Amino acid sequence: MARSDLRTPDQLRNVSYILDVAPHASASVLIGFGNTRVICAATIQEEVPRWMKFQGVSGGWLTAEYSMLPYSTLDRKERDSSRGKQDGRSIEIQRLIGRSLRAVVDLEKLGARTLWVDCDVLQADGGTRTASITGACIAASVAFNRLLEKGKITQQPMKRKVAAISAGIVSGEALLDLCYEEDVKAEVDANIVMTEAGEFVEVQGSGEEAVFTESQLEQLLTLGKKGIRELCALQDEAIAAAMKPATTDGVKSLAAYFSKK
Amino acid sequence: MARSDLRTPDQLRNVSYILDVAPHASASVLIGFGNTRVICAATIQEEVPRWMKFQGVSGGWLTAEYSMLPYSTLDRKERDSSRGKQDGRSIEIQRLIGRSLRAVVDLEKLGARTLWVDCDVLQADGGTRTASITGACIAASVAFNRLLEKGKITQQPMKRKVAAISAGIVSGEALLDLCYEEDVKAEVDANIVMTEAGEFVEVQGSGEEAVFTESQLEQLLTLGKKGIRELCALQDEAIAAAMKPATTDGVKSLAAYFSKK
Amino acid sequence: MARSDLRTPDQLRNVSYILDVAPHASASVLIGFGNTRVICAATIQEEVPRWMKFQGVSGGWLTAEYSMLPYSTLDRKERDSSRGKQDGRSIEIQRLIGRSLRAVVDLEKLGARTLWVDCDVLQADGGTRTASITGACIAASVAFNRLLEKGKITQQPMKRKVAAISAGIVSGEALLDLCYEEDVKAEVDANIVMTEAGEFVEVQGSGEEAVFTESQLEQLLTLGKKGIRELCALQDEAIAAAMKPATTDGVKSLAAYFSKK
Amino acid sequence: MARSDLRTPDQLRNVSYILDVAPHASASVLIGFGNTRVICAATIQEEVPRWMKFQGVSGGWLTAEYSMLPYSTLDRKERDSSRGKQDGRSIEIQRLIGRSLRAVVDLEKLGARTLWVDCDVLQADGGTRTASITGACIAASVAFNRLLEKGKITQQPMKRKVAAISAGIVSGEALLDLCYEEDVKAEVDANIVMTEAGEFVEVQGSGEEAVFTESQLEQLLTLGKKGIRELCALQDEAIAAAMKPATTDGVKSLAAYFSKK
Amino acid sequence: MARSDLRTPDQLRNVSYILDVAPHASASVLIGFGNTRVICAATIQEEVPRWMKFQGVSGGWLTAEYSMLPYSTLDRKERDSSRGKQDGRSIEIQRLIGRSLRAVVDLEKLGARTLWVDCDVLQADGGTRTASITGACIAASVAFNRLLEKGKITQQPMKRKVAAISAGIVSGEALLDLCYEEDVKAEVDANIVMTEAGEFVEVQGSGEEAVFTESQLEQLLTLGKKGIRELCALQDEAIAAAMKPATTDGVKSLAAYFSKK
Amino acid sequence: MARSDLRTPDQLRNVSYILDVAPHASASVLIGFGNTRVICAATIQEEVPRWMKFQGVSGGWLTAEYSMLPYSTLDRKERDSSRGKQDGRSIEIQRLIGRSLRAVVDLEKLGARTLWVDCDVLQADGGTRTASITGACIAASVAFNRLLEKGKITQQPMKRKVAAISAGIVSGEALLDLCYEEDVKAEVDANIVMTEAGEFVEVQGSGEEAVFTESQLEQLLTLGKKGIRELCALQDEAIAAAMKPATTDGVKSLAAYFSKK
Repeated sequence: MARSDLRTPDQLRNVSYILDVAPHASASVLIGFGNTRVICAATIQEEVPRWMKFQGVSGGWLTAEYSMLPYSTLDRKERDSSRGKQDGRSIEIQRLIGRSLRAVVDLEKLGARTLWVDCDVLQADGGTRTASITGACIAASVAFNRLLEKGKITQQPMKRKVAAISAGIVSGEALLDLCYEEDVKAEVDANIVMTEAGEFVEVQGSGEEAVFTESQLEQLLTLGKKGIRELCALQDEAIAAAMKPATTDGVKSLAAYFSKK
Repeated sequence: MARSDLRTPDQLRNVSYILDVAPHASASVLIGFGNTRVICAATIQEEVPRWMKFQGVSGGWLTAEYSMLPYSTLDRKERDSSRGKQDGRSIEIQRLIGRSLRAVVDLEKLGARTLWVDCDVLQADGGTRTASITGACIAASVAFNRLLEKGKITQQPMKRKVAAISAGIVSGEALLDLCYEEDVKAEVDANIVMTEAGEFVEVQGSGEEAVFTESQLEQLLTLGKKGIRELCALQDEAIAAAMKPATTDGVKSLAAYFSKK
Repeated sequence: MARSDLRTPDQLRNVSYILDVAPHASASVLIGFGNTRVICAATIQEEVPRWMKFQGVSGGWLTAEYSMLPYSTLDRKERDSSRGKQDGRSIEIQRLIGRSLRAVVDLEKLGARTLWVDCDVLQADGGTRTASITGACIAASVAFNRLLEKGKITQQPMKRKVAAISAGIVSGEALLDLCYEEDVKAEVDANIVMTEAGEFVEVQGSGEEAVFTESQLEQLLTLGKKGIRELCALQDEAIAAAMKPATTDGVKSLAAYFSKK
Repeated sequence: MARSDLRTPDQLRNVSYILDVAPHASASVLIGFGNTRVICAATIQEEVPRWMKFQGVSGGWLTAEYSMLPYSTLDRKERDSSRGKQDGRSIEIQRLIGRSLRAVVDLEKLGARTLWVDCDVLQADGGTRTASITGACIAASVAFNRLLEKGKITQQPMKRKVAAISAGIVSGEALLDLCYEEDVKAEVDANIVMTEAGEFVEVQGSGEEAVFTESQLEQLLTLGKKGIRELCALQDEAIAAAMKPATTDGVKSLAAYFSKK
Repeated sequence: MARSDLRTPDQLRNVSYILDVAPHASASVLIGFGNTRVICAATIQEEVPRWMKFQGVSGGWLTAEYSMLPYSTLDRKERDSSRGKQDGRSIEIQRLIGRSLRAVVDLEKLGARTLWVDCDVLQADGGTRTASITGACIAASVAFNRLLEKGKITQQPMKRKVAAISAGIVSGEALLDLCYEEDVKAEVDANIVMTEAGEFVEVQGSGEEAVFTESQLEQLLTLGKKGIRELCALQDEAIAAAMKPATTDGVKSLAAYFSKK
Repeated sequence: MARSDLRTPDQLRNVSYILDVAPHASASVLIGFGNTRVICAATIQEEVPRWMKFQGVSGGWLTAEYSMLPYSTLDRKERDSSRGKQDGRSIEIQRLIGRSLRAVVDLEKLGARTLWVDCDVLQADGGTRTASITGACIAASVAFNRLLEKGKITQQPMKRKVAAISAGIVSGEALLDLCYEEDVKAEVDANIVMTEAGEFVEVQGSGEEAVFTESQLEQLLTLGKKGIRELCALQDEAIAAAMKPATTDGVKSLAAYFSKK
């Protein structure tokens, strides 16, 4: 069965990015997995939570927040601040983003600093959590590189890069990187978070109100590993681009885009 | 390396239960996985959420809530109602409980009813989410059996029983059903939700601020499958016991315990 | 007119208890007044609220929280954390529990500690506030005894034991310890909190959207005093049992029950 | 021992009132018990809560709200809206006000209307709950009289007037109508709510972190009955005054006061 | 076109006041702009917000809160504490009150103190924000005078008095000090906050879902200036009266009114 | 005195825009006033609020929400959903945005629809409220044009375009379109909302804890009018561009940018 966007089963959607869309952050990237677009920002704060000081815990802290902008969905999504609280799905996702990054960041090397990872979905078309993790790793890496450049830290806190991708079984077929339309029809849905070295950080397989077999899980993991490899190559490219001086021809940064106009 | 409670690596903790601890629920069970104790209650409400009526969705609804009682932890845990909101971990767990049960319940056969699944942790010693799912399935099954007995429904909504267990890598060794002390030390932690027919419902593997390999994941799944088989046998026993007339010698129910006193 | 459970007008319901149902608390008891069952837990925290430190107030602190578990009522009760706040009735009851215990506890002798008293209703059939106070006094007494045993305090902070019971006028007749069915029909409803020495701690008489005379109030107080005497004897028994080594034949503790299985 | 304001033990403070301080309410009164001043407003809404319509309950509804204005206390009291929730004491008091009035109002005669009773403390010097109940009864009575005058209802819903007063034991002596300074020192504190016919509506006696005897309770009730009789006479006067045309010489109403200026 | 209360276009409503209606405040006034009545209270707290201490900011702080009492409007307004949050309009108004007073108060001269300005609307008939600012300036001035009298401060922190008035275009005509009926019909609505020296503090002109010209804005400012001059004269009178010993014949204070009774 | 970015006193910052950054909205624009960047999205919902249906009000509804993304400020701004409520400044701004658009939109012509206007600040450098209004008008106009194109409405609801700009007195000099650095130093700050026809919609002048004269206000209005004229020309250009087929060379839309990559 052909995919709606004519991809092969093991093909990622087009992955795009614009760097430094939010210049007040330490680093930021607008990442696109197909039509899914997420603003990922890393902000370094020169202090740690109060409980760390009280308990005498050394090193830094890392915390993640995830939100869908109200106009990111086909039907407008009510703001958390209007509802008075975050929805459960957002909380689950931001906890996953936080765990994924903490698995690859050496907080001791960050010093007494907090890294805030903010992921705000601009357009949702499936895979917002995997795009968030993949983009957050770019933003965090660039933020760390800039701390190194300024001499504020002396060792790279990012032990290895981490990326994430979804895979699912749709009409019996294993597919990589589901778009929303596929996600809704999927019998099984998995999210794989993996390092560039091929180690798992998190694997979540879920029967969508259904069940699945070990062999199906294996197929999804195999697809996931392929996708992660490709994403890690893109992360390398983006991180390198961010550290170069901004140019108007590269249009990799929004600032460049605006100044070109 | 010996486990603190002398179990073999693939051994479950002692699984215990007292039935109908909350007689106003449709069915309830106090389930124990070792020292972890969770009150699981199933309550049938003769109506569905308003949005189902408005949208004309047929069948029933199932929703789960999870909470830790303040005295369930070694350090007293502040109540959600004092904090003004649930903590993120509880929300994540109650979403998992809900998904796990919805995967095996045919809501169409439940009719226009809501099944509330409440899991309140009385004592926490690792594995509260897996004990919750396993106990919730018992409570829901008994609640359905009672609806059948009363003739309110004509077909069993529970397609297959579902149970859950944790497994983890501790000091390099794969262990089944981690207690709190082991959980804290685990390098990798997995929660496996599975049906009695050996199908996965949900698999969550997480490097605890670390990473893991596919072979480690396989070991954990193998342990999990063994544990689930044993849990399903216990569920059968508990469900059968609940449908027998209460006796004072069986002491399976708290009512019986109290009347015996 | 006969009572639905055939009690005489001045007869308490069967009072039952299981000790140490929540082993992570300093002390706990599941107390039953007939079908009303409340988990009462006392937790000692080795610190006092911040305002006490700031204001230099010496001695300890005591605070009480009361909640109905969602499956404790005939119709499922929405959780406080879902509603976002506690209901007014629960707040009123937990304030009463706190005042009742503070009247008999010498906080100076507790040292710079906080005693948390948690009462969670497992099954509601009238008299949840009186069962809570009676059970909370058992839990607090056992918790204090254990502090004494460990040598953490040198003097008993519990000046006298305190218990509570309801009485009401139903169809013109004064009845002790109303069950829910009687409570609903009562013209007058009183809650009496009293020490073992026969002193009042709190008396609350309320015409249920009706009025009452001084002579009716006197009848209710007379019934209450009789009930309190009987409850205080039971408290003595329970507190003594809690301080004995756990045995599998005594089945006074849930741990014993579970280990017997 | 002389009272700070030279009253005899059984003497009320000066009771004062200004009528219709909030002309947009159906009726209102600023009542003073000595230096305690409370704005009591009765507002009739031409509808009942939604649940009454759904459940087909006939008659009207009555609900009370109590709040202390931030400048009513010696130390400024933070607003409920800043704290995000009402404090427990306010909730307890507004529930008492509501129960007290529902005991004497025939909601059937009110028709499908809601009576809102609002009590806002302008100055707190002890006895704010008793002043609130006493003033709320005046406001509700006047509101009902005005409904009768307009022909909107045909029968008086107020069955009997209700008033409330405090009494307490201070340094061993029973005193009526405690001011704040006395209240703080009281060993026992009672609030008595009574009808003009001498029937109790609510009796609350509380050892202030202390205990009390039945004979002490009797003394307090005797004092309370005397105080209530005097308050009921004042209520009659105020209600009669409110129904007369406003005059500039009577200065019973704030409108009159302002127009006189 | 005649105004409903027969005023000329540039005529203020009758401005009335009662001093010290809330004696526990440092100073207070019940101010009336026609039928609009607002309780304005100034409370001095002998401390500054924690952030000022942390940041080492010298001088004092000033914060304003505004609320409409539930019975102040023709249809009863739900309390903020019942809604769980303040409504947007109230927040906007209290921010305006705070800005207006901070523009004329030298916080350095206040010393390390907080001035709380509370405005609670007792009756709303248009112009509640302008009456609030005008009354709040009286209350703050009197509070400062009393601090000076007690020698707690040595210099007057109030640099100049500030007052506020509304003006609007109704049926094409510019009118001063709109009452509610006029406000609803106004095509343009302006609020002018000005010092006694004729300087603007804040000017807000708003087309009520409509637009307006610069010449219309000028007409409104001219009206506003006239009104402010008259209000400032009244403020002087009130502030002077507040500093005189209370007399029973002056009836300027509520205490005097009550004692006269 | 030279401006930090070398502008003349009456010069706007560079105004830039990218269209349709959030394709799930009906229309959207990322607008830049210098370094200030705001995502403005217009979303049409095919229903009106429930109260409009109940009260039988015809026509449509328009509501605005404003928020600063956490990484938009130099110091990370805590999310509203973490704080549990919106801050007062945001509420004030979103009310201004809503009023400004309602002044120029004929809701009757919108039919029974709701227009949601969302403004999320990506980067804050002064003037976020004026950029929000100016961008929101573009988004709303494009959304209306698309409704017209689809034949869902037959008449343009936008009566005239509206734009907004700030002006202020800095070191005694009147400047147009303040950046953050200037805004902080400004003695007087004005926000002017105006239609393309030169009519005022809203004028807000505020002494920043200071005062100002009528002549200063006039200078600011004069500057504002000049700025608004230029902004309206840019709005025309943007709206026209949005209605053309997307091209990869125009790079006016983010979709075009991404597809070009």
